[in-house]
Amino acid sequence: MQGLWLNDRTLKLRTDLEVPKPAQHEALVRVLQAGICNTDLELMRGYYPYTGVLGHEFVGIVEEGSSEWVGKRVVGEINAACGHCAFCLSHQRSHCENRTVLGIVNRHGAFAEYLCLPEQNLHRVPETVSMDAATFTEPLAAALEIQQQVKIGPGDRVLVIGDGKLGQLVAQTLALTGCDLLVVGRHAEKLAHLEALGIRTGDGVQTRSVDVAVECTGNSSGFAIALQSLRPRGTLVLKSTYADRLTLDASAIVVDEITVVGSRCGPFAQALELLATQQVNVTPLIQARYPLSEGLAAFNHAQQRGVLKVLVTMDNR
Amino acid sequence: MQGLWLNDRTLKLRTDLEVPKPAQHEALVRVLQAGICNTDLELMRGYYPYTGVLGHEFVGIVEEGSSEWVGKRVVGEINAACGHCAFCLSHQRSHCENRTVLGIVNRHGAFAEYLCLPEQNLHRVPETVSMDAATFTEPLAAALEIQQQVKIGPGDRVLVIGDGKLGQLVAQTLALTGCDLLVVGRHAEKLAHLEALGIRTGDGVQTRSVDVAVECTGNSSGFAIALQSLRPRGTLVLKSTYADRLTLDASAIVVDEITVVGSRCGPFAQALELLATQQVNVTPLIQARYPLSEGLAAFNHAQQRGVLKVLVTMDNR
Repeated sequence: MQGLWLNDRTLKLRTDLEVPKPAQHEALVRVLQAGICNTDLELMRGYYPYTGVLGHEFVGIVEEGSSEWVGKRVVGEINAACGHCAFCLSHQRSHCENRTVLGIVNRHGAFAEYLCLPEQNLHRVPETVSMDAATFTEPLAAALEIQQQVKIGPGDRVLVIGDGKLGQLVAQTLALTGCDLLVVGRHAEKLAHLEALGIRTGDGVQTRSVDVAVECTGNSSGFAIALQSLRPRGTLVLKSTYADRLTLDASAIVVDEITVVGSRCGPFAQALELLATQQVNVTPLIQARYPLSEGLAAFNHAQQRGVLKVLVTMDNR
Repeated sequence: MQGLWLNDRTLKLRTDLEVPKPAQHEALVRVLQAGICNTDLELMRGYYPYTGVLGHEFVGIVEEGSSEWVGKRVVGEINAACGHCAFCLSHQRSHCENRTVLGIVNRHGAFAEYLCLPEQNLHRVPETVSMDAATFTEPLAAALEIQQQVKIGPGDRVLVIGDGKLGQLVAQTLALTGCDLLVVGRHAEKLAHLEALGIRTGDGVQTRSVDVAVECTGNSSGFAIALQSLRPRGTLVLKSTYADRLTLDASAIVVDEITVVGSRCGPFAQALELLATQQVNVTPLIQARYPLSEGLAAFNHAQQRGVLKVLVTMDNR
């Protein structure tokens, strides 16, 4: 089969891959469409030494597995857990000590014709959710993780730093809390997506003014803006993976007693619910589509400055 | 009067200082003894551009003020608050937006014959607390702040990184919670102080094993050890002020969803209670005493590697 293969920071289109064989309790999923995430781009920059098929945002159809799943349109949680470590036993499967992670750690990913995942990772996509919208389930769930970790509600002053793919989804999910939300970014055309949804945007922020700041840029200057914007005892949510080391003013964290919260994967069921009820609007974020056979061009496009979501659509739909 | 004056990273013994005049609701305190803190040393390295009398850990006698205070032996909270900003009104006076801070921000400090503080900052020292022990009230309160921010109890695996002045007090206060405590440090003679109290010490720690790690070294390598030691979703308490910028692996914070909590000043009343009931043992940490007239020698001593608490005792006792 075809697939986009990462090795030593180089992505190649391979046509010689074998269709993966599902292990026990796993399903074989025919991928319909997959999205390019900043983590994919960071992996290409060496954030983590991964070799294999890239990709973890997808929608597909189950081709092999138990009868309840075969033929179903699905999305899948990316952490494949062992089921018996302390984290699995305490219902924190995304932190399983022995996990593989789709397209990130020891498990071939979604930029290929087929992938395998444990059936317990799968979520059926409601009929009312389009294929395009469903492709956003994973990053939307990651955005929702913030609200699993930090209580945010009406009256809270919340700042999102970054108007890219992640910032867009974070902003839309936070807006649903009724908080006093501001998104700052450098791209008028991206901020316009949010303004169209009634979300306040800008290019600067008052210092020491917000309760919660969510860093969605993945660079030190974004972190510095987040830190400066927070009131004493505020909360800084760190949402991006960073290929480079981060340099910061630790004394500001100590003196102002700031809480920094790292935030990763989130609840799929809730993300699908938001998509099904159209409480978020993700399809305007799609800027380009490429067939898998032109997957390298898709990545070149996604790496350009200012580009939002680029999708890779499989030729076998 | 005499005092140790910091200007442009240079500390001088001045003998030409005027005795400060207490403002309304302030007391004039004759300083008996003051302790050298790492923050003092960081200020000398330029952590914050402060000019004035250094010092914020002290015990003294009120010489002028309202009748209820005059003649009393006192310690004092270091943040002098405005009383009317949002933080003061919400009982977070240590984060007052307009505060001065004894020996740190716009208020002359404790390495002098006299200092001024608002009377509401003062705490009477119980008779049973020695002058030496009372001098540790401020840093002991800072150590107790951790427990105001993070719930720690029996069964929690807690790591303290650093066996210096701060690490010693943090370890002693955490030991009182009944947690499963380990202190790592590089100085056998300092760790011996803790072992004598029944606290487990070592020079290394298993990775991904602890629930809470408290960074008391003030450098990037201490932070890295803290991060490596934490289990996923663990809590890293940042307790030191850092003159240098901190460089860290932000992706580890995101992937493991670590919470980093900055921690500063804490509850004086509780610290005095621990001293009065001898639940902590601070006086073994005293390594040297100098009269104020030899204050520069005291600072030279305190800056030497491996030295614990150096006290400056006023000549006017």
